[in-house]
Amino acid sequence: MENGASTKWRFEGNKDYNYNSNTNTKTAATLTVRALLNTLLDNLNQNDTRPVIPLGHGDPSAFPCFRTTSVAVDAIVDAVRSAYYNSYSPTVGILPARRAIADYLNRHLPYKLSPDDVYLTLGCTQAIEVIVSVLARPGANILLPRPGFPYYEAHAKHSHLEVRHFDLLPEKGWEVDLDAVEALADENTLALVIINPGNPCGNVYSYQHLQKIAETARKLGIMVIADEVYAHVSFGNNPFVPMGVFGSIAPVFTLGSISKRWIVPGWRLGWIVTSDPNGIFQKLGIVDSIKDSLNISSDPATFIQGAVPQILENTKEDFFSKTLDILRETADICYDRIKEIPCITCPNKPDGSMFLMVKLKTSLLEDISDDMEFALKLSKEESVIVLPGIAVGMKNWLRVTFAIEPTALEDGLGRIKAFYNRHAKKQ
Amino acid sequence: MENGASTKWRFEGNKDYNYNSNTNTKTAATLTVRALLNTLLDNLNQNDTRPVIPLGHGDPSAFPCFRTTSVAVDAIVDAVRSAYYNSYSPTVGILPARRAIADYLNRHLPYKLSPDDVYLTLGCTQAIEVIVSVLARPGANILLPRPGFPYYEAHAKHSHLEVRHFDLLPEKGWEVDLDAVEALADENTLALVIINPGNPCGNVYSYQHLQKIAETARKLGIMVIADEVYAHVSFGNNPFVPMGVFGSIAPVFTLGSISKRWIVPGWRLGWIVTSDPNGIFQKLGIVDSIKDSLNISSDPATFIQGAVPQILENTKEDFFSKTLDILRETADICYDRIKEIPCITCPNKPDGSMFLMVKLKTSLLEDISDDMEFALKLSKEESVIVLPGIAVGMKNWLRVTFAIEPTALEDGLGRIKAFYNRHAKKQ
Ligand SMILES: Cc1ncc(COP(=O)(O)O)c(C=O)c1O
Ligand SMILES: Cc1ncc(COP(=O)(O)O)c(C=O)c1O
Repeated sequence: MENGASTKWRFEGNKDYNYNSNTNTKTAATLTVRALLNTLLDNLNQNDTRPVIPLGHGDPSAFPCFRTTSVAVDAIVDAVRSAYYNSYSPTVGILPARRAIADYLNRHLPYKLSPDDVYLTLGCTQAIEVIVSVLARPGANILLPRPGFPYYEAHAKHSHLEVRHFDLLPEKGWEVDLDAVEALADENTLALVIINPGNPCGNVYSYQHLQKIAETARKLGIMVIADEVYAHVSFGNNPFVPMGVFGSIAPVFTLGSISKRWIVPGWRLGWIVTSDPNGIFQKLGIVDSIKDSLNISSDPATFIQGAVPQILENTKEDFFSKTLDILRETADICYDRIKEIPCITCPNKPDGSMFLMVKLKTSLLEDISDDMEFALKLSKEESVIVLPGIAVGMKNWLRVTFAIEPTALEDGLGRIKAFYNRHAKKQ
Repeated sequence: MENGASTKWRFEGNKDYNYNSNTNTKTAATLTVRALLNTLLDNLNQNDTRPVIPLGHGDPSAFPCFRTTSVAVDAIVDAVRSAYYNSYSPTVGILPARRAIADYLNRHLPYKLSPDDVYLTLGCTQAIEVIVSVLARPGANILLPRPGFPYYEAHAKHSHLEVRHFDLLPEKGWEVDLDAVEALADENTLALVIINPGNPCGNVYSYQHLQKIAETARKLGIMVIADEVYAHVSFGNNPFVPMGVFGSIAPVFTLGSISKRWIVPGWRLGWIVTSDPNGIFQKLGIVDSIKDSLNISSDPATFIQGAVPQILENTKEDFFSKTLDILRETADICYDRIKEIPCITCPNKPDGSMFLMVKLKTSLLEDISDDMEFALKLSKEESVIVLPGIAVGMKNWLRVTFAIEPTALEDGLGRIKAFYNRHAKKQ
C-alpha cells in the first residue's frame, strides 16, 4: 500500500481557535495569556546565561518562599493512601468537599450556604468555562471588565456569547465604571463579571463599592459573576469582602479555587458557588444547567476532592500571614522600583492579588512603538517576561506580577531599568 | 431594599443541555450515562436493606479486589511531597509524562512516537472533548459506532458537529459494519471512531479487522479516532492490538488513560496521541488546533502528571495479570448466569473491557415494555442497576458490567433472575 501522505485527507484548517500565529494583529478576545507568554518565551535569547525572570504570569509556587503548607500536602497523601477516592466522583463533586467549601465561605457571609450551593471544578478556570457556557444563548451578552482576565473572552467566543466591556477606572483605584455598565446593558444582558481582588490591577474593592455593584446589577436585572480566585490574598488597607455578602441584593456566582491562597495552582481544585439566598438561580433553571454542563465535563481528581476538608479546616493562620507578608513586601518593592523607571507608571499601589498594571509611555522610548514590542524586546535582551497589556484589553500597558522571590523581583526590575536606559529617547 | 426575588432576572431556560428531565422521551444523543444512572439511583427503594448492586457503570475501584497497585499510590505521594509539581503545567502536559506515555505506547508499535505526539488530558473524557471540538466545523460529520459511548454524541451536539452511526455487528463479534461506513461517508466526513477493547460490547478486535478499518479510512480519506481507554484490558482469545499499528495506512488519534488498566478512574489522567508516522495531522493544522483547544482548558493536576513516569514504568506485570484473572472470572460468571435468564441473551462472550450487551426480549415479560422500564423496575424492586440500551444507542438492549466483586456479581444476577421470574409472561 502506498504511503498515506499521498491520500487526500479532509480537514480545512482551523475553525474556532486562532491565537498562535501572527499575534501582533490579534485583539484581546482571541489571545490567551498562555499563548502570548509562549511567544515571549520563544523569543528569549538562548545565549543569555542569567536566569529568566518571570513577571508575566502569576505562579509563585516555584519559589521556595512560597511553598505551600504541609497541611495541604499531608491531606493529599492521606486521601490517596486511604484508597477511598479512586472512583469517579459525582459530577457536582463529593459531598464532604462541597460541605467543607460551604463552611469555609460561611465564615464570611451573613447567611448560610448549603453543600448543594457548591459545585467542584477544575480550578477557577473550569468554573469560568462552565458559567460562560451555561449563559451562552443566541443574542445574549455579558459585561466584562477592561482590563480583565482573557479566559472570559476566549470562552465566550468559543460558546458564541457576546461580550461587552466596561472600564475599570485607574484614577479611582480601578473601581468599576458603573455608569458604563448601565449604558452597556440592554435586555439581552445576563450578567456582569467582577474580579476581586483584582487581576490584573491588584485592587481590593471596598464594601461600599461592592454594594453599589450589587445594586446596579439588581436595577438592571442581571446576575453577578464574582471571580474570587484571589479571595483573602489582600495585604493592603481594604479587607477582602466576598461579593456573596450582597447575594440577597443580586444573585451571585462566586468562583474560587485553592490555587492562589494555598499557592497550588497545579492542583486544579476550584468551585462555583451560588451565593443566592433568594433561590433565583434555582427558579431560573440555572442550577440544572450547571449540573448538565458538569455532566459532560471532567472532574477534579477524586482524591484531591477528598483532601479538601483537611486543607480548608486545618491550614494554620500563620501560613496565610507569612504569604501575605511576603506579598506586601514584594508589592512595595515593585511599586517603588517602578517609580525609578520613567517609561512606566503605576497608578495605584496594589492592595491584593499578585499583579499590578503599569502604563507604558512609548513617547519616552526611541525604538519601541507598543506594549508587544516592549515585551518582545525585553524578553530578548533582558530575559525578563512581562505581559503586554493587549492580552488583558489595555494596549500600551503592561501587567507585572510581584508574586516572586524578592531578590528575583529586584533583579528583574533592575533589568527593566537598564532596558529603559538603553532605549530611552535621546533629548 | 426589597427582596431580590421580585426583580425580573433574565435567563430563558436551558439552551443546549437538556438531559435530566423526562428521560424516557430522549434519544441517545441527548442522554448521558451519568444522567440516566442518576435517574435509576433516584428510583431505588429506600426500604430495601440489601446492598445496591451497581452493574450500570464501569468503576471497579470501590471493590477491595480491584484496588490499584501501591506503585501508583507511591508515585503520587512522591510527586506531591517533592513540591516540584505545584505549578501550572504547560497546556500540553509536562515533558517527563509525555515522554513516559510515548515510551509506554512504543512498546507495541512498529515506529517510534515522540513526546511531541502526546497531549495530556483529564482522562479520556477530555480527550474526547478536545478531539470533537477540534473537528467541529459547519457541515462536517463524524462516524460513530452503534452501540457506543454517548459522550461522543453529547460533545458533538455541544460543538454542533454532525454525527452518523454505523452498526457494530453482534453476529460477527461486534465488528464494525464496514459496508455501512462506506455508505455513510461523504465528502464532509472527517473521521471514524472505534472503541477497542469495546465499551459497551466487550469485543477485542483482531489485527485483521483493525487493518481493514484502517484501509477503509484511507480509501475514504478520513482519520481514525481509536478510543483505547480499555487498552490491555483483554482476557480472552484476541490479544489487544493498538490501532496506532496501522497509523501509516490512515492517521490515528489514540485516546487513552490510566483509568481502567490501573483502576483509578478518579485520578483523571489521560492522553491524546497522534499515531501518525506520516505527519498528516501536522500538515493539516490539526496539531495546532489541539494545542489551541488545550490552551483554554484545564489540565490534569501537575503532580499527577509528575507521577506518570513512575506509574507507567514501575507497575509490576502481576498487578495487571491479577486484575485480568478476576475479570476473566467475572466475565464467565456473568455470561453463564445470563444464560439462565430467558428474557436476556448475550450474543458474544466478552473478551475485554468491563461490559457486555444483552438483548432484552420484552415478549417474554408480562408488564415491561422496554429497556428503560426494565431498568427502572429492576432498580426499584431489586436494587440492581443496569444501563438501558437507549443510553448507548440500542433500544431494548441492556449494558451490564462484570467488573465488580464476584460475590456481588452473583448476587446481582441472582436478583435479575428472581426479577424475571416475577415478571415472566404466564403461558
Ligand atoms: C482572575 C482569574 N480567574 C481565574 C483564574 C484561574 O484560576 P485557577 O488556577 O483556579 O484555574 C486565574 C488564574 O490566574 C485568574 O487570575
Ligand atoms: C469508551 C470510553 N471512552 C472514554 C471513557 C472515559 O474515560 P476516563 O475515565 O479516562 O475519562 C470511558 C469511561 O468509561 C469509556 O468507556
